[in-house]
Amino acid sequence: MSRAIELAARGIGHTSPNPVVGCVVLDSAGRTAGEGWHQRAGGPHAEIHALRAAGERARGGTAIVTLEPCNHTGRTGACAQALIDAGIARVVYAVADPTPTATGGAATLAGAGLDVEAGLLAGTAAAGNEAWLTSVLLGRPFVLWKYAATLDGRIAAADGTSRWISSAESRADVHRLRAAADAVIVGSGTARADDPQLGARVSGLADTEVSQPLRVVVDSGAAAVKAGARVLDGTAPTLIAVAEDADAAHLDGLAPIVRLPRAAEGPGLHIPALLQALYEREVRSVLLEGGPTLAGAFFAAKAVDKVIGYLAPVLLGSGPVTLGDAGITTIAQALRLDVTDTARLGPDLRITATPVRHTRPEEN
Amino acid sequence: MSRAIELAARGIGHTSPNPVVGCVVLDSAGRTAGEGWHQRAGGPHAEIHALRAAGERARGGTAIVTLEPCNHTGRTGACAQALIDAGIARVVYAVADPTPTATGGAATLAGAGLDVEAGLLAGTAAAGNEAWLTSVLLGRPFVLWKYAATLDGRIAAADGTSRWISSAESRADVHRLRAAADAVIVGSGTARADDPQLGARVSGLADTEVSQPLRVVVDSGAAAVKAGARVLDGTAPTLIAVAEDADAAHLDGLAPIVRLPRAAEGPGLHIPALLQALYEREVRSVLLEGGPTLAGAFFAAKAVDKVIGYLAPVLLGSGPVTLGDAGITTIAQALRLDVTDTARLGPDLRITATPVRHTRPEEN
Ligand SMILES: NC(=O)c1ccc[n+]([C@@H]2O[C@H](COP(=O)([O-])OP(=O)(O)OC[C@H]3O[C@@H](n4cnc5c(N)ncnc54)[C@H](OP(=O)(O)O)[C@@H]3O)[C@@H](O)[C@H]2O)c1
Ligand SMILES: NC(=O)c1ccc[n+]([C@@H]2O[C@H](COP(=O)([O-])OP(=O)(O)OC[C@H]3O[C@@H](n4cnc5c(N)ncnc54)[C@H](OP(=O)(O)O)[C@@H]3O)[C@@H](O)[C@H]2O)c1
Repeated sequence: MSRAIELAARGIGHTSPNPVVGCVVLDSAGRTAGEGWHQRAGGPHAEIHALRAAGERARGGTAIVTLEPCNHTGRTGACAQALIDAGIARVVYAVADPTPTATGGAATLAGAGLDVEAGLLAGTAAAGNEAWLTSVLLGRPFVLWKYAATLDGRIAAADGTSRWISSAESRADVHRLRAAADAVIVGSGTARADDPQLGARVSGLADTEVSQPLRVVVDSGAAAVKAGARVLDGTAPTLIAVAEDADAAHLDGLAPIVRLPRAAEGPGLHIPALLQALYEREVRSVLLEGGPTLAGAFFAAKAVDKVIGYLAPVLLGSGPVTLGDAGITTIAQALRLDVTDTARLGPDLRITATPVRHTRPEEN
Repeated sequence: MSRAIELAARGIGHTSPNPVVGCVVLDSAGRTAGEGWHQRAGGPHAEIHALRAAGERARGGTAIVTLEPCNHTGRTGACAQALIDAGIARVVYAVADPTPTATGGAATLAGAGLDVEAGLLAGTAAAGNEAWLTSVLLGRPFVLWKYAATLDGRIAAADGTSRWISSAESRADVHRLRAAADAVIVGSGTARADDPQLGARVSGLADTEVSQPLRVVVDSGAAAVKAGARVLDGTAPTLIAVAEDADAAHLDGLAPIVRLPRAAEGPGLHIPALLQALYEREVRSVLLEGGPTLAGAFFAAKAVDKVIGYLAPVLLGSGPVTLGDAGITTIAQALRLDVTDTARLGPDLRITATPVRHTRPEEN
């Protein structure tokens, strides 16, 4: 199963709106006969690749899969049926498939007389599919907020200069996050201040091998992104989210726009509507790159699932701060997180954390 | 030598204005004959304790000392002479003594025919005496700035509430820092907002076993500390630093005051004068507990030697920030640090870092 999880990870960034899946087929004597992973949405599932590689050796063998084999006949045919047809005797999978249309694979397999075992390394496999599983459960994209700050929580100096607060190692790590995400989002403030390109460049990989995220600018007034902006270059798709009443005529032919309702309170667009619009465009994972104002609004909307902070060993004593207003005014409302990982990236410290989901008040 | 360094550490917090020193005496066959450490200022030096424990077995033996044995006859007699008188054949020490009045011990020993070796585990031994060595070199107390903040760099919520941003483990760690320091400093803003007691309580140690720091409030106008303030309780000495022209009559009989010049620019007192006044009172190490305004002034005065930050896995999105104005306006002036340690303390992350000392411009 460890091997299957490794194989699954090769699909990261390429499979949306599908999960990443890895599969190892063993022959009846327990030797590896075939391996496969889901390489891209619309392409064959992991099981099909592995069965093809195994050929006749699959008969009487075992299939080890990171996710419950699918039951529906979508673009590619149901995997449960393919496993049965190949004569597989036993299926071991890690995580159940929560999708209403795909679920039931295990029951189909068992009904056909195969041995079925669930739950092996389920935690690790689920972590590998964190974004996809979260998006299926919540019905909106998984949101990872990334920030880079000084030890005193500043993202720029008082005069707005910020190159380079974080190290080359941290910046390379951000590009890996971009390549793994379906979309990258910034606010109009960041678009204005930094004119970011938002593409993913991964060293050791040709640009064509890197999966580029959809670049999204949240620009209610359609006033921040202008012709010539780097985010409009041809290297990756772009989407400008504007208010329903915005005058966006100057964007015609430059980039697709999506018109969204304004937030009920405060500035900007309605965050749940933005996420819904992206979900409908098959975006399952979002890298929220800021700035602090937009990130604060995402937290206020309870729409952040994971946080990765790059802390540079630098002090500034003035300048804008990491996170803007999230509707918290007193310490009892503070948003608490679990730190799941810390790492050194060059001189920087990377902190990975997950917001603690509070039980609802009536459950206390 | 590792053992001698361990012994030395037992003196931390008790030996100022002297260093911590540990000593192991081996007999002529290389077996441990006596151990000692400098227990308190005015008491016998480490070598004397170890020689007494070794008695006649010191003759022909080796003395292993963390610091070059002293040469002067102060309150306690020169250690170099005591080692010679005890018939020690060989002295191994880690770090040379930079004090003008104490230096020359190695030469005295060698002149009397003893084998002398210097530099064994010098780095580790110097780290154990970091505060004292820094204070001797700079002629002012060693300053450690401690802060506790959220991941987004806030030290309190927008309404000023801050209990408890950091964990019980982090707070216990701060008490250990206080016990190790000769003085703890806060600004008038912190005195007003928090009415802190600033004493050291170390679990597992009776209050009488814990060395209490001098509690210093920097209160230019003599307006923040009033009768009944917790910092005026009888558990530890207190010093209120006020401006030369401040009306401090209400502090008569409540706490000693020191009158200092005001800062040449900006608010408050002249930081170098404050440190000088503490040095003259035999303070060799200071724990600067903030708040952000005073800490910014210390950084602007280049008077911070080490930083320990307790980062709580919490986000606030508003509220006061860790570090106030330190005279930095653009990223090129940013203060860079080396992170020397990171640790988990309960849910929190502790970061230890040292400001990078830039070569002076004319040396570039
Ligand atoms: N270090 C880092 O990790 C990092 C990352 C990104 C940015 N930055 C820095 O952050 C600074 C810009 O940050 P910022 O806070 O000014 O801008 P921002 O967060 O990028 O954008 C804020 C703008 O987004 C728009 N918006 C749309 N919907 C919103 C909503 N629901 N809630 C709030 N805003 C919404 C609003 O403008 P409209 O009404 O015009 O739509 C708002 O003013 C720059 O200095 C940049 O360098 C740093
Ligand atoms: N989380 C933590 O680690 C931590 C630690 C400490 C405090 N805090 C929080 O920090 C807040 C208070 O911070 P603060 O920044 O308002 O106050 P502060 O830094 O404690 O005190 C600032 C005051 O110190 C005096 N001062 C004297 N000499 C100075 C100099 N050279 N430069 C600057 N100031 C000098 C000035 O007042 P005068 O002119 O009256 O002398 C100044 O207003 C409180 O909310 C407290 O809870 C948090």
